[in-house]
Amino acid sequence: MKEKEPFEKLKKYFGERWSVSPSDLENHGRSESYYPIHAPDAVVYPITTEDVIFLVNVCQEAQIPLIGYGVGTSLEGHTSAINGGICVDFSKMCKVLDIDPYNMSATLEPGVTREQLNIELRHSGLFFSVDPGANATLGGMTSTRASGTTAVRYGTMRENVLSLEIVLANGERVTTNTKAKKSAAGYDLTSLFIGSEGTLGLITKITVKLHPIPELITSGVVAFETIDDAVEAVQEIIFTGAPVARLEFLDEKSVEAFNAYSQLSFPLKPHLLFELHSSEKSSPSDIENFKSVCSDHGGMEFQWSNKEEERKELWALRHKGYYAVLASAPGKRAIVTDICVPQTELGKAVSETQKDISRSGISGPIFGHVGDGNFHAILLVDPEDPKEMTAAKSVATNMANLAISLGGTCTGEHGIGIGKLDFMPAQLGHGWNVMGNIKEALDPLNIMNPGKLIKRN
Amino acid sequence: MKEKEPFEKLKKYFGERWSVSPSDLENHGRSESYYPIHAPDAVVYPITTEDVIFLVNVCQEAQIPLIGYGVGTSLEGHTSAINGGICVDFSKMCKVLDIDPYNMSATLEPGVTREQLNIELRHSGLFFSVDPGANATLGGMTSTRASGTTAVRYGTMRENVLSLEIVLANGERVTTNTKAKKSAAGYDLTSLFIGSEGTLGLITKITVKLHPIPELITSGVVAFETIDDAVEAVQEIIFTGAPVARLEFLDEKSVEAFNAYSQLSFPLKPHLLFELHSSEKSSPSDIENFKSVCSDHGGMEFQWSNKEEERKELWALRHKGYYAVLASAPGKRAIVTDICVPQTELGKAVSETQKDISRSGISGPIFGHVGDGNFHAILLVDPEDPKEMTAAKSVATNMANLAISLGGTCTGEHGIGIGKLDFMPAQLGHGWNVMGNIKEALDPLNIMNPGKLIKRN
Repeated sequence: MKEKEPFEKLKKYFGERWSVSPSDLENHGRSESYYPIHAPDAVVYPITTEDVIFLVNVCQEAQIPLIGYGVGTSLEGHTSAINGGICVDFSKMCKVLDIDPYNMSATLEPGVTREQLNIELRHSGLFFSVDPGANATLGGMTSTRASGTTAVRYGTMRENVLSLEIVLANGERVTTNTKAKKSAAGYDLTSLFIGSEGTLGLITKITVKLHPIPELITSGVVAFETIDDAVEAVQEIIFTGAPVARLEFLDEKSVEAFNAYSQLSFPLKPHLLFELHSSEKSSPSDIENFKSVCSDHGGMEFQWSNKEEERKELWALRHKGYYAVLASAPGKRAIVTDICVPQTELGKAVSETQKDISRSGISGPIFGHVGDGNFHAILLVDPEDPKEMTAAKSVATNMANLAISLGGTCTGEHGIGIGKLDFMPAQLGHGWNVMGNIKEALDPLNIMNPGKLIKRN
Repeated sequence: MKEKEPFEKLKKYFGERWSVSPSDLENHGRSESYYPIHAPDAVVYPITTEDVIFLVNVCQEAQIPLIGYGVGTSLEGHTSAINGGICVDFSKMCKVLDIDPYNMSATLEPGVTREQLNIELRHSGLFFSVDPGANATLGGMTSTRASGTTAVRYGTMRENVLSLEIVLANGERVTTNTKAKKSAAGYDLTSLFIGSEGTLGLITKITVKLHPIPELITSGVVAFETIDDAVEAVQEIIFTGAPVARLEFLDEKSVEAFNAYSQLSFPLKPHLLFELHSSEKSSPSDIENFKSVCSDHGGMEFQWSNKEEERKELWALRHKGYYAVLASAPGKRAIVTDICVPQTELGKAVSETQKDISRSGISGPIFGHVGDGNFHAILLVDPEDPKEMTAAKSVATNMANLAISLGGTCTGEHGIGIGKLDFMPAQLGHGWNVMGNIKEALDPLNIMNPGKLIKRN
């Protein structure tokens, strides 16, 4: 076994932070998605950048794959050890290193979760905006270019990471940017590593942007007769420059699942969940304008609140959406897929997908970030039933192809991993080769999360 | 002459759009900056992407450098033909191809200027936000990751380009992204090409984001006793989440030049120029809050207007700043340099720079984008006077080193070109090598604007 010597070296260096226990390996080979388990050969828990450098140096010499790991909430098999290798679990690198309120930034280790960060920020008057639902780590969120409910106002990870410390495949440590708000000094390495899914290096430090907590937050919900009505209302709302911070869409099936899970009685129609970030002075007219645009498009059952408790309840509902849908079909597992299309194509994309799901015979509620043109289908299947699995995979494939044919992307926020590789040629053409060239230039031995995002022999 | 055959081929293909006239060559070898003229060997005027592909294919075979050219407003020698080669003048690729109000985007050719774009958008209710002052082309602005006065609210080119069509050094055409608002499909090629200064390929098409024209725009000016007072006021204003769309700083020397140039009588103190983008309803309280924070920091002579004429006058003043400063010293030329530091270091950076300028014996007004921590010094010199040139270059060097030592960047928006190459190792360390690796992977023959951004033998 060629790994014997390097594994001995790593075991000696990491001591108790090195694990080959079968349960540990299996836990790190699975994820929330439906992909089969591919366990790594070992799991290591670094606590410093120097640890990571040591690890990479040993592994580049022995050509052992390295797979970064946060809390395993990715959805496209990103952490699956399809070529074996070592899982680098960042859970012990979980310190917020610096909160800098005057520069509105924070520097932290990759194992910090977004909820932990916002708890540590609670007395600063600032918050970290990116919210993918799951309490993911910032390292994982950076690696997959996560976004979520607030992207419509505050942007995705792309807009909210200022700088990264990376350990490259050659063991070199690189800081991608300074703490200045902007820079024109060379290629945008920060953006290159955001969304690179661990295939170009391991993230060991992250500096993120923070935003002032708005004076007044209003959350609410409104029902529509059809999806197209909801989408048209959203377009007009965005066009008016309204201070929308979240704009989420639920289809009838999702509402049904949410109602059952949380004992609610929303009408079984498409709904918008929204949040406005305003000032005390402008809030009443902001709400009035929002309501008026919704009414023009047949919006009904308009409810809103600016009380913290009630607002939190509403978003808890949304964030528990995945579990609500799972609970609606006991014993089933979910194939969760996401696509993102130009705003104008959203109504078409959602209704075609609904028809396709209906034809497929499986159940698949749809919800998503309507302000971005991004939505998810939660396809419910019995993983042991090959017919259901085939039907679900076919729906997911059709969704990705539909997105591409409508001028959109096969994934708005979940990433490529192993699950969406087949759509890259159609979507990117020669651009995928360019990505392959970059991968080869930065990781010639292909030890950084091999097999994800890029196909290489 | 090894270029003979390819030049004949290109001449035949481009006909009247191929030029080797001495005046054309010289015009394309100079820029607004002080760098000596390096004329290209030929200038070509493509009108289609196919033209550019033909050009690149001929040039890669003959290893002839290709230098993209917009309107020549770059400031770090980006368009200088230091290794000879062909200047690719995009002035005939100047069509706005598509305005898509519902997706709030526009697709255009690289020779479109920002003023032209905003004129074509005038009936859409939308505008393109990035405003570097000069009426630069979108191709040039993308290549240098331009920003300017509105970045504090709407971001730089990085945040406002959705997708690019690029012709690579191997003649392949790549579209970097879809028209969806966001994507998690692979490496962020769009960001990689934004700010790459023509060293990775030639931009042939650009899709930009548009923003709704705000309901009410208020512009104004306020004086402070000291720079630190102004900077502290700005920090507090941003922290309150005020809807500031521009926050510009002028030092005393700049005010003096502006006064003389435009027959004004602003007090000779540091000034803030600002713009708020609000709604009719919130505007009065936004202005009141802004004024109150300024007053807390000694702000005085507060003036504002929401009349379009008066607002435009104010910003014309700012945009003519460079010429006002030039006019203040007849016969001199300007070395314009820019740095960007963390917000908290801005007061220190400006005052240390002022002291250094004062010691140097040359004149050098300072103004810039205080909301981003980014400022410019306009160093006035007689290019024929080696003492003044040495003094100015030494000030510029000290500024860049100061920025790096304060955790900032040697350039916030002008780029590297040939002028800032020497600061890259100190600022980026091994990161500059990574950029070199990417350059080599995408342009192995080094024909794309060689000698800029990256040093390579």
